[in-house]
Amino acid sequence: MSAPKYSFKNDYSELIHPQVLKALSAAGNTQFDGYGLDKYSISAGELIKAKINKPSADVHFISGGTQANLVAISSVLRPHEAVIACESGHIFVHEAGAIEATGHKICTAKGADGKLSVSDIESVVNIHTDEHMVKPRLVFISQSTEVGSVYKKAELTAISEYCRKNKLYLYLDGARLGSGLNSGVCDLTYGDIADLADIFYIGGTKNGALFGEAIVICRDELKADFRYHLKQKGALIAKGASIGLQFEALFENGLYDELAKHANNMALKLANGIKALGYGFLNEAETNQIFPIFPTQTAEKLHNLYDFYDWQKTGGMTAVRLVTSWAAPENAVDEFVSDLNYYKEANRCQYL
Amino acid sequence: MSAPKYSFKNDYSELIHPQVLKALSAAGNTQFDGYGLDKYSISAGELIKAKINKPSADVHFISGGTQANLVAISSVLRPHEAVIACESGHIFVHEAGAIEATGHKICTAKGADGKLSVSDIESVVNIHTDEHMVKPRLVFISQSTEVGSVYKKAELTAISEYCRKNKLYLYLDGARLGSGLNSGVCDLTYGDIADLADIFYIGGTKNGALFGEAIVICRDELKADFRYHLKQKGALIAKGASIGLQFEALFENGLYDELAKHANNMALKLANGIKALGYGFLNEAETNQIFPIFPTQTAEKLHNLYDFYDWQKTGGMTAVRLVTSWAAPENAVDEFVSDLNYYKEANRCQYL
Amino acid sequence: MSAPKYSFKNDYSELIHPQVLKALSAAGNTQFDGYGLDKYSISAGELIKAKINKPSADVHFISGGTQANLVAISSVLRPHEAVIACESGHIFVHEAGAIEATGHKICTAKGADGKLSVSDIESVVNIHTDEHMVKPRLVFISQSTEVGSVYKKAELTAISEYCRKNKLYLYLDGARLGSGLNSGVCDLTYGDIADLADIFYIGGTKNGALFGEAIVICRDELKADFRYHLKQKGALIAKGASIGLQFEALFENGLYDELAKHANNMALKLANGIKALGYGFLNEAETNQIFPIFPTQTAEKLHNLYDFYDWQKTGGMTAVRLVTSWAAPENAVDEFVSDLNYYKEANRCQYL
Amino acid sequence: MSAPKYSFKNDYSELIHPQVLKALSAAGNTQFDGYGLDKYSISAGELIKAKINKPSADVHFISGGTQANLVAISSVLRPHEAVIACESGHIFVHEAGAIEATGHKICTAKGADGKLSVSDIESVVNIHTDEHMVKPRLVFISQSTEVGSVYKKAELTAISEYCRKNKLYLYLDGARLGSGLNSGVCDLTYGDIADLADIFYIGGTKNGALFGEAIVICRDELKADFRYHLKQKGALIAKGASIGLQFEALFENGLYDELAKHANNMALKLANGIKALGYGFLNEAETNQIFPIFPTQTAEKLHNLYDFYDWQKTGGMTAVRLVTSWAAPENAVDEFVSDLNYYKEANRCQYL
Repeated sequence: MSAPKYSFKNDYSELIHPQVLKALSAAGNTQFDGYGLDKYSISAGELIKAKINKPSADVHFISGGTQANLVAISSVLRPHEAVIACESGHIFVHEAGAIEATGHKICTAKGADGKLSVSDIESVVNIHTDEHMVKPRLVFISQSTEVGSVYKKAELTAISEYCRKNKLYLYLDGARLGSGLNSGVCDLTYGDIADLADIFYIGGTKNGALFGEAIVICRDELKADFRYHLKQKGALIAKGASIGLQFEALFENGLYDELAKHANNMALKLANGIKALGYGFLNEAETNQIFPIFPTQTAEKLHNLYDFYDWQKTGGMTAVRLVTSWAAPENAVDEFVSDLNYYKEANRCQYL
Repeated sequence: MSAPKYSFKNDYSELIHPQVLKALSAAGNTQFDGYGLDKYSISAGELIKAKINKPSADVHFISGGTQANLVAISSVLRPHEAVIACESGHIFVHEAGAIEATGHKICTAKGADGKLSVSDIESVVNIHTDEHMVKPRLVFISQSTEVGSVYKKAELTAISEYCRKNKLYLYLDGARLGSGLNSGVCDLTYGDIADLADIFYIGGTKNGALFGEAIVICRDELKADFRYHLKQKGALIAKGASIGLQFEALFENGLYDELAKHANNMALKLANGIKALGYGFLNEAETNQIFPIFPTQTAEKLHNLYDFYDWQKTGGMTAVRLVTSWAAPENAVDEFVSDLNYYKEANRCQYL
Repeated sequence: MSAPKYSFKNDYSELIHPQVLKALSAAGNTQFDGYGLDKYSISAGELIKAKINKPSADVHFISGGTQANLVAISSVLRPHEAVIACESGHIFVHEAGAIEATGHKICTAKGADGKLSVSDIESVVNIHTDEHMVKPRLVFISQSTEVGSVYKKAELTAISEYCRKNKLYLYLDGARLGSGLNSGVCDLTYGDIADLADIFYIGGTKNGALFGEAIVICRDELKADFRYHLKQKGALIAKGASIGLQFEALFENGLYDELAKHANNMALKLANGIKALGYGFLNEAETNQIFPIFPTQTAEKLHNLYDFYDWQKTGGMTAVRLVTSWAAPENAVDEFVSDLNYYKEANRCQYL
Repeated sequence: MSAPKYSFKNDYSELIHPQVLKALSAAGNTQFDGYGLDKYSISAGELIKAKINKPSADVHFISGGTQANLVAISSVLRPHEAVIACESGHIFVHEAGAIEATGHKICTAKGADGKLSVSDIESVVNIHTDEHMVKPRLVFISQSTEVGSVYKKAELTAISEYCRKNKLYLYLDGARLGSGLNSGVCDLTYGDIADLADIFYIGGTKNGALFGEAIVICRDELKADFRYHLKQKGALIAKGASIGLQFEALFENGLYDELAKHANNMALKLANGIKALGYGFLNEAETNQIFPIFPTQTAEKLHNLYDFYDWQKTGGMTAVRLVTSWAAPENAVDEFVSDLNYYKEANRCQYL
């Protein structure tokens, strides 16, 4: 089998953005302090605090998203406390039981379009009435979500208010925060996130960095001893500067948003092209993940040319997931649509 | 306070070796598979298996040393099983309870010069007689050790044989494996390590990589499902290629050993210079960590010029730790000795 | 408010059966060995092994059901392995996250009537395909179930066969095993349970004992070091004889089955009486828990006279849970039916 | 081998004191509330709160000592926090890693005579300086200790004050609290314990109960959600009344102290008898555990007549542990001394 023209499997297939690489190169052999106490990490932290308009926040850099989730969540909860998440939530489905391995149950609500509503959260809270059950204490959401959707300001505000009234912490997984906040349909700012969530992370791995995420702690009572938690979970890397440097590059000239916009634009272009050919979608294309529905035989033919994941199969149709990255070349998008059109035509002709 | 001339605090103060950086640069925007299934990681794994002369080994790349220790050890043990380590062992002292956080006790023996002997191990085994106590199941050692010493072939062979006779797994922390195996006093090869230990890791962070370590599993029964453990502990990073690429660069042309040798040579030169001035040492200088003993006032003066850690203080004397890295410039070593000589002279004059 | 005539809330409201109490009294001040190594525990173990027709089984006595579940399950699983249970399973709903606290996720299937089918189990297995998800390894069922239903021989055999083909362990929570196996609709024997499950427990607390459960390990590979797990989880009580003595009394003259039959008979009588008055049920009354459905105002009136739990409310109707214990007096059952009849009549008259 | 005359192995060899048994018998088939919410548990809690002169305390009844330790300690600590204990501490040596299994490291100090001093505690605190190490947060002591010694009021006050100044919680394992407080050399009251410790437990298992311990929480901030912790660790037994009843019997007429005094008196008599025959001791006999030193051949002969544990062997001498229980008959003590005298005489004659 020949190599595929392009992979739409995910947004971590390309190594590193040239400007971020340049920042690493520029460091040379200068010596720096270990464990994230270096000047790059400090400067990157300041840039992020300015971006989110929250000078009092604490910023910590770590190597990956599952790690961010497990360190942050386990640092917040006492042993009997539990997480509320959407059934499609990454921590519930795709982290190999990382949260449970720290001792905590995840209570799920069905949600809609990858999102929790206040009433979803309330339904979980209401059935947990006594000490024979866990005690829900933290709400886990992601922006953008597992299915590419985004929380709007009204939705997130309602959740945040409910949480504060009900002694629940709000944690936001921002593996794709850039893509989420730069979505055309999103009316939230970085500052809103910092105001409404108690703790969240900003993903670098999926938006131009070689690796790395930035955990941001907004609520004072969650800040104490956080570096102990990082160390204990193997997340306090010796050369913290290696991540600090990257976030400095991503946040000092707006690169982070620029890359996210590119990813979103490519997805939108791809979605529009597919839509124009008459295909439907599982949900609205809002960020850099889209879920068009093709006849299964069309999907199979596309697999000969492109890499991507099948998402759902029902009755001769296959919904697929197409992800565009910060590095996605526009011509790959154009070619995909053109190839799709070709298959469609060929298919039509077949029945003439 | 003015900036120090140089830091001998550790061997992770410099970011990345130019050849490793070049490998990252060369990748460009080629797409690769996620989670360590990319061609770079596969190739790096092959290079390591060739180096250790163990084609059947499994190699996994992760981001840091504490993480390597906690994932590897927790993957091996059942809940009631425990680790045997030296009192100075990194996992016992300096990993914020990372092993205990996975549920396992560390039973210590005093050891000597940072090393465990068979009789140390035996003394721990012998007192654990029934189910009211934990069951020791894994022996943790490091090469080179926390105090820069190295296990010789006879020592490691004896430990390995004892372990196999007594159903103990042998785990070797190789954060400084390059430095250890390239020590002038070490008669062990990479192949010996793979033969004698059941599972170990090769450190990249402290020997030229931006970040990353390679876990090597030699014993078949420990291989199953290891990627699940990596994922669950947040250690399976999305862009595994970012580490694979680096280890490929480190192992394809002998760079790894070359860098370790440089670090050791600089330490030896430093030790010899200090010794020539009449100072004693806590232990023999065998690798890239040395522990000279200075009058406390001399140590304090040196602190004005150089960064390093004080290790022990007794009766007016201070043993300090000086670490030389793969990037340590020879002139920094020369200047340290020269400055030391100056203080010595000055001190002597003072009493004339 | 005056005291209720009787409580149908559960089957652990009465302290201890006189014959079991007599066994405790008879021990006097004889000295016995600690930690379950006493002659009473050994004799009780032999009685149970004879009862289940499995001389090779290991039997351990512990103080409670949640403890039995958490020790047994955590002793079997490696860190990344998970449990499959019914959504209504006790470990999933009513043990305060005890299993997750040992590090393991519980994957649920909806099930029917409190029971899992092979296809329920298969549906969970089939979606867990790689290391980004947990690895299901143990199936948790209970006999009788949380809603009083029982597995029949064909059902349990099918589950057991599926498990053995798919490398899943089968664990059976027998908090109410007596009630389950003595159900009129159950065609399983104690021996069948021991043949089909790999590990299970026989509940004493809910069937005449002061406290205590017997864990039975049938599968050889699960036996090793089990006492270490008991000790580590605080389940190896110093005076193990206190439980051994009770199980000896329960199993030496058929008392265990006799008590379970009484509980079932009382439930059946209660169910028949309620049915005769024209009320429906959530499910068939098979053991000592029944779930009649009353008009909510009737249920409220009954609450003035009896203690019991409301189970579900919908549209003016309330399904309640009535539990009859080994000590339930027949006249309490008769009076309940009579009082129900009175309310029904009163209610009818009201509308005449 | 014929049965030994008597066992001095421990203080949990006899089942239950007649008055406690009577309390269980008296309950008959009265129905009571589950999970420790019954009137017996409430009444027993009141008796204990009166005894310790602390009406604001919370009292919880559970089944065993290891369980008490692991639930209490894990409820107090955040993941990175650690325990400080004496090297001989039960949780460090003889609980199969129960504390580590909840994720927490135990940091030890050598101590003296089974006890920690303020300077022992301080030495541990002082070396834990940053996030690369665990953070000591709770001090574990026991009264009486593993070697039968007792803390005096001045010692415990000093520890308590140090803890409060240094944000350390003080936890006291009172498996043998009765024996400790009723020691002739102890000047502490139950009220003192409640004033000086933040959380402790009163042991029933080793002082007349069939089983059961009472956890007492004195510090307000440690009370919240404690029943969740009990449930999650399998410690909230369904028939909580079974323990409440026993503690009611133990505390309503001074039985608890009476039994402890008897145990101590028997130990003292035994120690005096042994001392009178010229034998030395490992430490002072203060409670119901004594550690006389015999020639090894004498110890071996005594093993033919009595059960007890050898504690230490050095140079032909064996220190043994003799424990007297609440039920120890005086004649067993007398006979032991008489048999010892006989062996001594015989031995002497042998050399005449």
